[in-house]
Amino acid sequence: MTTPDRAKKTPRRTAERILDHSLALFNRYGEPNVSTNAISADLNISPGNLYYHYPAKEVLVNALVSRYEQALTEALVAAGPADDAEGAWNLVPGLLRLAWDYRFLFRDLNDLLTRNRQLETRCQAALALQQAAVRERVVRLCVIDGLPLTSEEASALSVSVVVLLTYWLSYEYVRDPRRALEPDNADAAVRHGTRQVMALLWPYLSAELRRQLRPGGPAIRPSETPSSLPATG
Amino acid sequence: MTTPDRAKKTPRRTAERILDHSLALFNRYGEPNVSTNAISADLNISPGNLYYHYPAKEVLVNALVSRYEQALTEALVAAGPADDAEGAWNLVPGLLRLAWDYRFLFRDLNDLLTRNRQLETRCQAALALQQAAVRERVVRLCVIDGLPLTSEEASALSVSVVVLLTYWLSYEYVRDPRRALEPDNADAAVRHGTRQVMALLWPYLSAELRRQLRPGGPAIRPSETPSSLPATG
Repeated sequence: MTTPDRAKKTPRRTAERILDHSLALFNRYGEPNVSTNAISADLNISPGNLYYHYPAKEVLVNALVSRYEQALTEALVAAGPADDAEGAWNLVPGLLRLAWDYRFLFRDLNDLLTRNRQLETRCQAALALQQAAVRERVVRLCVIDGLPLTSEEASALSVSVVVLLTYWLSYEYVRDPRRALEPDNADAAVRHGTRQVMALLWPYLSAELRRQLRPGGPAIRPSETPSSLPATG
Repeated sequence: MTTPDRAKKTPRRTAERILDHSLALFNRYGEPNVSTNAISADLNISPGNLYYHYPAKEVLVNALVSRYEQALTEALVAAGPADDAEGAWNLVPGLLRLAWDYRFLFRDLNDLLTRNRQLETRCQAALALQQAAVRERVVRLCVIDGLPLTSEEASALSVSVVVLLTYWLSYEYVRDPRRALEPDNADAAVRHGTRQVMALLWPYLSAELRRQLRPGGPAIRPSETPSSLPATG
């Protein structure tokens, strides 16, 4: 990659470029397989310049996790108020897309956590945030034949949805390592994961929501939001 | 570790000891973090002796995967015929226990697959084997209020169960990295994962099976196996 305007870059701009590029390389090859030297060589900057902004690879990873956390918060805000059914459904592909954008994090999560203890509390917080959002929005849409879920059932269902959101890309990778995480598989991966989460929720949906969500049926719209959502304890 | 009877070991015995020890170290520290030198040092044998049996770490990993494949086949056989309801339920904790015994494989699966392309087809085959078994046995127990599942619903449910079986320990690890994979958490991890899979299947179960499986209710026994299981397409 040539960077003819490199000399004009402000430090702030360079720091962002390093982050963008690291994310792309980590996503493509896996974080354990990309050294900071490889990043600086690929960016055509000196290792010293990279170290000036990020004195260790861990600092770089933590900065990307900060970006992920911010994007997660934005995705939850974008889902709108808890009683917006369309927003609730859009949350599922939104969170899958986020997992795609930061797939290096999820494909090597255990290894990253082993090597970087600072990530412990941050990953736990991110999971808890997603689980609460899934419970308050997505699971809130669910009833079985008009019966509200018990609190225990709502919790179990939220956990299963979050496990699917977190590991769906890993599962696709095991199934087809050569293509699953390639850039042009993004839409398909998000679509498959969304369908899988919908299948998980299906038995719990009211007949009315099933009609709205069934493939080929009318898409759910804000105006079609059920007027009163079931309480889930 | 002292090995006073080391001189008496046959080569076969040494090869097995190396495998046992590697499995324990990989499970504890993660495969990427354990070198063959660390294994030979811990076993109190020379690196040359280890290389005589396993000329590369990849060979060692592949030998452990062979062990895993054999254990998987045995677990599926142990579940008995497809119409044995108790066997079907025992398959879930059985497969979770197996994932526990080889947890190094699942915690670093993506990284292992990236570095060891020989594992690709073997992992895909192991997933397909589990998915077929889950569908033929566990999902076969399911009906919603007496309605058999469609073929599509049975497939989706099998996939969700397999994703849970495969990634449950990873999820527990993110939630509590310091304890989740420690040896004394084995029973709790298997119990949590089993409960999570049961929650997934719950809405699909007949009222009769729910009564049998409800915590505190009578445990399912071979004699209580439903005389006719629903076809799942």
